[in-house]
Amino acid sequence: MATAPSDAGRDHAGEPAKFPLVLGLDTFGDVTHDDDDRPLSHAQTIRNLVEQGVLADQVGVDFFGIGEHHTDDFPLSAADVVLAAIAARTTRIRVGSAVTVLSSDDPVRVFQRYSTLDAISGGRAEVVLGRGSSIDSFPLFGYDLADYEDLFEEKANLFAELLKGGPVTWHGKTRASLSNQDVVPHTESGPFPAWIGVGGSPQSVIRAARYGFSLMLAIIGGSPARFAPFSQLFRQALESFGRAPLPVGVHSPGHVAVTDEKARDEFWPRYLEVIRHVSKTRGFAIPTKESFMYEIGPRGALYVGSPETVAGEDRRQSHRSRREPLRLEIRHGRAVA
Amino acid sequence: MATAPSDAGRDHAGEPAKFPLVLGLDTFGDVTHDDDDRPLSHAQTIRNLVEQGVLADQVGVDFFGIGEHHTDDFPLSAADVVLAAIAARTTRIRVGSAVTVLSSDDPVRVFQRYSTLDAISGGRAEVVLGRGSSIDSFPLFGYDLADYEDLFEEKANLFAELLKGGPVTWHGKTRASLSNQDVVPHTESGPFPAWIGVGGSPQSVIRAARYGFSLMLAIIGGSPARFAPFSQLFRQALESFGRAPLPVGVHSPGHVAVTDEKARDEFWPRYLEVIRHVSKTRGFAIPTKESFMYEIGPRGALYVGSPETVAGEDRRQSHRSRREPLRLEIRHGRAVA
Repeated sequence: MATAPSDAGRDHAGEPAKFPLVLGLDTFGDVTHDDDDRPLSHAQTIRNLVEQGVLADQVGVDFFGIGEHHTDDFPLSAADVVLAAIAARTTRIRVGSAVTVLSSDDPVRVFQRYSTLDAISGGRAEVVLGRGSSIDSFPLFGYDLADYEDLFEEKANLFAELLKGGPVTWHGKTRASLSNQDVVPHTESGPFPAWIGVGGSPQSVIRAARYGFSLMLAIIGGSPARFAPFSQLFRQALESFGRAPLPVGVHSPGHVAVTDEKARDEFWPRYLEVIRHVSKTRGFAIPTKESFMYEIGPRGALYVGSPETVAGEDRRQSHRSRREPLRLEIRHGRAVA
Repeated sequence: MATAPSDAGRDHAGEPAKFPLVLGLDTFGDVTHDDDDRPLSHAQTIRNLVEQGVLADQVGVDFFGIGEHHTDDFPLSAADVVLAAIAARTTRIRVGSAVTVLSSDDPVRVFQRYSTLDAISGGRAEVVLGRGSSIDSFPLFGYDLADYEDLFEEKANLFAELLKGGPVTWHGKTRASLSNQDVVPHTESGPFPAWIGVGGSPQSVIRAARYGFSLMLAIIGGSPARFAPFSQLFRQALESFGRAPLPVGVHSPGHVAVTDEKARDEFWPRYLEVIRHVSKTRGFAIPTKESFMYEIGPRGALYVGSPETVAGEDRRQSHRSRREPLRLEIRHGRAVA
């Protein structure tokens, strides 16, 4: 994900802004299994995740992201704490959430945690704010999922105010108001990059533009081409709000192995298992081998194959041909041991 | 602070339990100044704190604690994030809060953050829960300081339930109820050590015993002997609740230098400055040089002097003579560059 500051490309008014194409890895911190297929402890899963982040830094990945969840399968409820451990052992890779469920959290606490992470990492922190993709947090923290739109609207607004730096005055219904309140720690070099994760709602795209967040499109199935209009809408909305261009990123599931065949064979059975599992609560269509083969092709949403296939010229070209400053982000979840 | 699990000494029923005497450092993460007396940035202060924690590990300190505050002078609002960075770069030292202001936080989030820290550190996390010593957090998170007793009582109760592991059912007025709720990440080897920080309230001592927390006495001035009855009360209360002995710790301000004289000369002007500053909002008496000299003596509350004076046999004997399993904890704050 982001290596450039989110206001890079400001000089390219009139033309779609040029942002560097960078490669990140996101994970939900899935509980992995040992050689006898016994689940590892949550603690061991977390320690392994720290090692993965350190390895990602060593092999040249640009960004490492952790998504917030609150389940036995996904015990990463405090992603920022894990990211701080990764930041302490690396010097180059950027670290961030993917996503932070802002609707069920307190924007002040989230700002404080990521501003602290930004300090520890020497300016390598990012945050992706989500509205409600992880619904397990709502009952846990006493929120009604039915309110997720109002919650997110207010909290995104407050988060944007906090990012500006300086004392904050803010009034709303979803948390205590703030009156000329200094919130610490202050950021060192202006706001850290902040994105809104969007699954397919034009309203969310416009909100990101209105508050000056970058746009992270979650494309987890179907044709990515469907999302091109969101990118256009974002650019137009930024213009209409008088804002400079901001980057657009793509978050998609993926799996990389030495060859395309090996990647496919490893990924398919686990992908099927995960979708079947998730489908019980979220109603996803169960993939067929045929639909899967389409999804991992150049017009699909899954990045599965050899390094050349996943991040090579063909795939880059497909982003460039849409003249969009897209960033490639690969989720490795349960499918990756 | 704690190197032994908090249920150590369980076999010594009838006798005051024997807990190891260990030495920790606490800090509020005070903004320090450069050679020209300009304040460092919050970010640099936080990075320096990480280095201090790593150094403390290297020189053999047993515990490193960070206290939560939300002010320009004390920008450590997300102590657990900083502790995770220290944990990632150390293998021996225990890390924890000193204190977490539980009254204005969510016990579920606090448990999740410290359970994650416990995973990262391989079982070296601790938490000291406080009721309201840092009052700056109350307006920031929409709480009324007048409610601090009810807030802390309920939240300490919930935190004790969370520490037991397993699904939690809990009802209260200060946050959403939980019904058979699994809270992740699970701890790896049972509960991590959890203390209640007590400034001088018998009610707080009894609460710590009732819920099975260890007792951390904050002795920041006056004769430590005044606190001996609290330690006795704690032991009796644990017995009456049918609980095994739990350790008692002491948190006191301190400053260590090569000689007693150097430590005194360095500490006194800054101590005076800090107390004058804090006195404006909290009404502390302004110390005189005479009262200061008493405070740093063997019957005083300040640990100021050479290593031999601060942690040597005289001071240890004064703890042992009260037959209390005391632990020595030294705060280094603004007084220490």
